[in-house]
Amino acid sequence: MSARVLVVDDTPVNVKLLEAKLLVEYYEVLTACDGPSALVIAEDTIPDIVLLDVMMPGMDGFEVCSRLKSNPVTAHVPVVMVTALNEVKDRVRGLEVGADDFLTKPVNDVALFARIRSLVRLKRASDEWRAREATAVELGVTSAADTEVDQDAPGSILIVSEGMYDCALVESTLSEQGHRVEVAQTDEQALSMAGYGKYDLVLVSDGNREGDALRLCSQMRSEPETRHRPILIVVPDNSDDRLAKALELGVNDYLVRPVERDELISRSRTQIRRRRYEERLRENYTTSVNAAVTDSLTGMYNRRYLESHFERIRSRLKDAGKPISALVLDIDHFKKVNDTHGHEAGDEILQVVAQRIQSDLRGFDTAVRFGGEEFVVLLPDSSLASAEAAAERLCLLVSAEPIAVSGIETKLDVTVSIGVASMVAGDGDLEELLRCADAALYEAKRTGRNKVVTSSEKSPSSADRAGQKSLYAVPTQQSAENAVR
Amino acid sequence: MSARVLVVDDTPVNVKLLEAKLLVEYYEVLTACDGPSALVIAEDTIPDIVLLDVMMPGMDGFEVCSRLKSNPVTAHVPVVMVTALNEVKDRVRGLEVGADDFLTKPVNDVALFARIRSLVRLKRASDEWRAREATAVELGVTSAADTEVDQDAPGSILIVSEGMYDCALVESTLSEQGHRVEVAQTDEQALSMAGYGKYDLVLVSDGNREGDALRLCSQMRSEPETRHRPILIVVPDNSDDRLAKALELGVNDYLVRPVERDELISRSRTQIRRRRYEERLRENYTTSVNAAVTDSLTGMYNRRYLESHFERIRSRLKDAGKPISALVLDIDHFKKVNDTHGHEAGDEILQVVAQRIQSDLRGFDTAVRFGGEEFVVLLPDSSLASAEAAAERLCLLVSAEPIAVSGIETKLDVTVSIGVASMVAGDGDLEELLRCADAALYEAKRTGRNKVVTSSEKSPSSADRAGQKSLYAVPTQQSAENAVR
Repeated sequence: MSARVLVVDDTPVNVKLLEAKLLVEYYEVLTACDGPSALVIAEDTIPDIVLLDVMMPGMDGFEVCSRLKSNPVTAHVPVVMVTALNEVKDRVRGLEVGADDFLTKPVNDVALFARIRSLVRLKRASDEWRAREATAVELGVTSAADTEVDQDAPGSILIVSEGMYDCALVESTLSEQGHRVEVAQTDEQALSMAGYGKYDLVLVSDGNREGDALRLCSQMRSEPETRHRPILIVVPDNSDDRLAKALELGVNDYLVRPVERDELISRSRTQIRRRRYEERLRENYTTSVNAAVTDSLTGMYNRRYLESHFERIRSRLKDAGKPISALVLDIDHFKKVNDTHGHEAGDEILQVVAQRIQSDLRGFDTAVRFGGEEFVVLLPDSSLASAEAAAERLCLLVSAEPIAVSGIETKLDVTVSIGVASMVAGDGDLEELLRCADAALYEAKRTGRNKVVTSSEKSPSSADRAGQKSLYAVPTQQSAENAVR
Repeated sequence: MSARVLVVDDTPVNVKLLEAKLLVEYYEVLTACDGPSALVIAEDTIPDIVLLDVMMPGMDGFEVCSRLKSNPVTAHVPVVMVTALNEVKDRVRGLEVGADDFLTKPVNDVALFARIRSLVRLKRASDEWRAREATAVELGVTSAADTEVDQDAPGSILIVSEGMYDCALVESTLSEQGHRVEVAQTDEQALSMAGYGKYDLVLVSDGNREGDALRLCSQMRSEPETRHRPILIVVPDNSDDRLAKALELGVNDYLVRPVERDELISRSRTQIRRRRYEERLRENYTTSVNAAVTDSLTGMYNRRYLESHFERIRSRLKDAGKPISALVLDIDHFKKVNDTHGHEAGDEILQVVAQRIQSDLRGFDTAVRFGGEEFVVLLPDSSLASAEAAAERLCLLVSAEPIAVSGIETKLDVTVSIGVASMVAGDGDLEELLRCADAALYEAKRTGRNKVVTSSEKSPSSADRAGQKSLYAVPTQQSAENAVR
């Protein structure tokens, strides 16, 4: 995979050396010779990865890294720190300011390219999600806050004990940090646990084991259930080639033996945080799509959903010739509530009525807010008689208890009128079914409200469509004029 | 990247050989020794790639490929056909039944792994999109038909002429197929054209050129604008290593010189089709998110959008202390239209009124369907006086011409009542602004309808919030009872 790499080093010969290596492998290279210019270039070009020297006069690598990670524009650009010394305390300090990995000078080519490829691949995957997130936030479907992650919340970790000879120590170290830790005894068990359990991280050890740790990683990456689960691999010292292969297979991060306590804690925390962040991005997508079919006030499905849902029900029931019934509910005198008590009172009433309707449905019934103060309930495989019974129940349920509205001392009596209609799944469509229920609703309103009226029309079918239309569509001159003015 | 590979071959030793090679590289391997069992295993496990022998007794590789590609479950699994002979007509026949690539026996390792990695990477990227697509279709936000692509529609192709010594021939061949073809003279020009133009495919030639073709490909993959644009590279014969590198950099497909006319046509068409399909998947995401903030009947933004949009306007205007005004419009006697003429008539009226409102707005004003027959228009940087003028204009515009409704002979006279309110961007929130406008609307309704009333309240601010609330929130005992029953 091609990528744009920013090389930061105060020694020109180091810059040239890295640049040359990267160009041969067809990377795009940008260079900076001090911290401040690195920050400017990074914000300007948003590279795919930064290779950052630690020891620089003025602003050192830790400071640069910390600033890159705290700037929202560059926070998601992976940073690899290039250090002269391989000191644990430097690595831990680097991890604390957000570094993603470390390379020791002189830089080994295998290690260099393995890390670049792995980090760039991970970044690209989340780039796409973030771009979509931005669209959703801009339109107000989700908020940026929905994606924020509690930075230090502990997670759930699976340790594969095979080859992990210091398993007990690793387990207790992580448990002390508040993580929920479980142990799989074999690779087989690990695969099955990782597939079913909700782990934020899987720890695997390479070397000194019966099965091949890379095989286990590969299997986890091949299965859709475990494909995105972060893996942290523990490798023996001096195993650059194995590590490169592990990263190529999609392992997210690694620890070199002997495992340093602080590094274990820090790298685990980073992976868990990322996992949470990406999960949140994915969930937000579902939220966005759900929002398109949901009424924001009541949380009920909306009219858009009703249409596609009806088609699914119809195609499922039509061969068996089963009935579909519909109730159209309208809150009585709702306009007056809004006019007298304001929209907020009206909104509260809509929410309560929506709750009451939903509390009384069977699992396969669907209630939607159709618009304004009107609701539709779809009852698959329900005869006209049982739909009528359901409507009578709902009518009583809504009026049974007056509704408390904030800021108003007296509870308000709320009632609904309901029209009921039914059709055989193969005959007619949603529009016709609702038209019949609507006519019944109109009758309920006309004859006193707070009641149920059942459509006297036969279940509509294509044969008598024309006849029905005349019931609603051809008004007298008088009614047309009265109606709208 | 790890992957699950299905190897299909009737000769056990060939299966074993390929399996061994793949296992060493940590791929998961499934095997089948004839066409029918390959189809069963593929549908069951959905591998990441199929390596398919062509010459098999019974059902041959072409037939297997054709069936895999016509089954929706396996249609997106890449198929590499493994052939004994490197005949152009076999390749073209393979491409016609949907094969993604070819390997000649004995299989060269570099070529094998380069193709697997490249095809699996492309598949994984579109897997994610498809999964999301499925969610959106299931909820009825988009339909599967939205993603269908006209299979043979010609596309737009950019040819980079450097090194393409047969450029004129390639160009005319593709033009004859109906594609719109343009030529970039240099790599630099190609980069700029590919970034700005709407090309479905870029054709690059390797060998015999000044600049490095792989560098050009790498640059295209590094730039966000060209990252997803398909690249078809033309390589000299016997350049397996260069080709492997090109695929690693993200080139989508290739042709080996001498370029065969039918293969050029077929591979170009395949890439264009895929590009269209993936573009459609991406567009559908935008559609889904847009749907969440759009009213499906009128196409106007909805209440959810209004809330986030108001916040953006407020934060933009608040430092300058500029005003924001709002109109709340309500169609007069709308309930009666629905009751007399049915919902469909009501819907048509809502659509026409929405159009009339939108036709009269400035570019930076926003109209939303707030719910039922109520609309809200937000006028940023607009004083109460100019908002009132806008409202008067809208009121006249809506009533100016009676509305034709299908199935009703006489056009219907439709009017709206409008309440107008204004606030200084820094003071108060959307809720308060709408409450004031609502109160004015109520006054307009009470005093005769088809008119504009402007809120007499001062622009709300946090200081007098409490006082305002009493206007709407504390009803007398009597009005509370009258209102809802």
